[in-house]
Amino acid sequence: MNVLIAGQPVHHRTVTFDADRNAVRLIEQRRLPHQFRIVTTPDYRATARAIGEMIVRGAGAIGATAAYGLAQGARAFRGRDRKRFREAVKRTFQVIHAARPTAVDPLNAMTEVLAAMRPGETVEEQQALALAAAEEFAHRNVLECQAIGRHGARLIKPGMRILTHCNAGWLAFVDYGSATAPLYAAHARGRRFHVYCDETRPRSQGATLTAWELAQEGISHEIIVDNAAGHLMQRGEIDLVIVGSDRILGRTGEVANKIGTYTKAVLAARHGIPFYVAAPFSTLDWKLKSGRHIPIEERAPDEVLGAWGVSTTPGRRPPRPRRSSPAIYVRVANPTSTARNPGFDVTPPELITGIITPAGICRPGELPKR
Amino acid sequence: MNVLIAGQPVHHRTVTFDADRNAVRLIEQRRLPHQFRIVTTPDYRATARAIGEMIVRGAGAIGATAAYGLAQGARAFRGRDRKRFREAVKRTFQVIHAARPTAVDPLNAMTEVLAAMRPGETVEEQQALALAAAEEFAHRNVLECQAIGRHGARLIKPGMRILTHCNAGWLAFVDYGSATAPLYAAHARGRRFHVYCDETRPRSQGATLTAWELAQEGISHEIIVDNAAGHLMQRGEIDLVIVGSDRILGRTGEVANKIGTYTKAVLAARHGIPFYVAAPFSTLDWKLKSGRHIPIEERAPDEVLGAWGVSTTPGRRPPRPRRSSPAIYVRVANPTSTARNPGFDVTPPELITGIITPAGICRPGELPKR
Repeated sequence: MNVLIAGQPVHHRTVTFDADRNAVRLIEQRRLPHQFRIVTTPDYRATARAIGEMIVRGAGAIGATAAYGLAQGARAFRGRDRKRFREAVKRTFQVIHAARPTAVDPLNAMTEVLAAMRPGETVEEQQALALAAAEEFAHRNVLECQAIGRHGARLIKPGMRILTHCNAGWLAFVDYGSATAPLYAAHARGRRFHVYCDETRPRSQGATLTAWELAQEGISHEIIVDNAAGHLMQRGEIDLVIVGSDRILGRTGEVANKIGTYTKAVLAARHGIPFYVAAPFSTLDWKLKSGRHIPIEERAPDEVLGAWGVSTTPGRRPPRPRRSSPAIYVRVANPTSTARNPGFDVTPPELITGIITPAGICRPGELPKR
Repeated sequence: MNVLIAGQPVHHRTVTFDADRNAVRLIEQRRLPHQFRIVTTPDYRATARAIGEMIVRGAGAIGATAAYGLAQGARAFRGRDRKRFREAVKRTFQVIHAARPTAVDPLNAMTEVLAAMRPGETVEEQQALALAAAEEFAHRNVLECQAIGRHGARLIKPGMRILTHCNAGWLAFVDYGSATAPLYAAHARGRRFHVYCDETRPRSQGATLTAWELAQEGISHEIIVDNAAGHLMQRGEIDLVIVGSDRILGRTGEVANKIGTYTKAVLAARHGIPFYVAAPFSTLDWKLKSGRHIPIEERAPDEVLGAWGVSTTPGRRPPRPRRSSPAIYVRVANPTSTARNPGFDVTPPELITGIITPAGICRPGELPKR
């Protein structure tokens, strides 16, 4: 999607590959929304570090980055010895996998690249196949998000007020995003609407990333605290909710997503407001039999006890940051207290109006098995 | 309640009066939870400023401060001229009222002090009556909160996990608080339980003030983001909810309270968890006929767009603050976005299990008219 550079929209993807330089180009997401910067990783170890240090985050984005990183490692090999080449590729795979070992997308993406390399007879052929597979992975991610946008856009009528939670935007994918794709598609068709971005404590991805994305596109939006959506729904000021998902159980239609999603679904159901979940096929999990088996990560208390931001005066825009790391951490909470920090929750299917997939919108219990 | 001074509990009230020095003593609440300091206001203008600058906040606390401030102004008068004395008292009243003109408690408290002064025949008599009335006002506030604690404590069984929202603690009253009074009373009776403090964005009074209060008393507690309560309820980890109130409509049982209260009530109802509102009689409003007529203050966007805290390193306790103002403001949100910031919401009576008043616990539709 677009990024405003000196006031002009410039198209960017979250991750791209520079074949000439054999380098991965990433948006430095840790500096957003305060600073927009592109990072180039010159070798696969740097690409792995970028995944590990969360320069790039989000399922689709780290999947594509890992795929590119594996191709990058393969292409850096000099020589024709296929055995040594295989070892080099294996090492690359392991280093990238170790960067975020619990994430499933880098693993799936790299497995796909490996499989695509197999028919290659020479090192050179396999190197070419690796890059083609990585490009194919990223491209499919873009097409899936575009399809989500196309299907989801018909839910959005002019003048609607739409609530989103967290960031399931293009920054979390290669482009377009999942929950945001319908917004971008409807906006591109000339429809005008208003988005309420849930702040999404504790990491505030709604206030930082989603709001940044919408601002770049010129989509009308306001940030609200997570406490405010219920009040706005009660007053009839929200017409539609669209969120993303970390995992959807194909068998039950249960949706695991950022903490607070369940609360929004309960509120929407009470007020008869349609509640949609947007997700590409890679989010579907056909193995787990019940949402009770989804492990809920308990994250560090610091996230709850404080906040990251740029020091400024209330009411003023922060100065354009120049230092290497613009955001600082402040401790908000009582210094002698601690916190619990569950990262995700599970929303049952009866609270979900529909799932927006690349194949169309369906009821949570009727997901297409591919 | 107690404040830990060098590890030892020392009893403090939010506001007290030093009759010898004709001065009001206040806890400097803007420095909490990072710093505990007592402020003495040597004249009524300083007392008015302390109300206006929110050194003291909370309905009961500013009511008592205003009552003491009026007595302080009256007692500073030198001479026997009753007409000039009346003028001085009137001026004091106006200056204190202007400090927070929309707050109802200072007005009610000072009106009570004025009425009590009337029978006095000399300036000296009236000065003595003013102080007695202010002390009486503060003392009644303490007794009401104690009574709320006595009635509410029987809801709290050993081992319970209790959710609170915002700060309706002793810092908002003269002592004990409303929503916290049952906790303190049950704890004093030796019952052990666990409290989840909703962070309560945007001003985070749960993470700052309520958590600080509970830490001083040694009550087991953890802070959670406002997004997390739904998940904990779903997992059966919350047994009881107690919140305070800014206004309860006597005619309908509707409760106006800090933004997010309605959401917690909806979640509690879905999970069959008892939801109680604690409030002294001064919170009851018998005039308004419907919650739709309660004005909902839209506050400054800065509160949503950023946070106040002490700069530190995640995982470390912040250093003991030494500077005059320990907390700084950081902009968290995208710098080109803005926010909506409704300060309160209204919870309908069907979501409320009971109201804990100084006269006992009753259904929201059966409030005692006094």
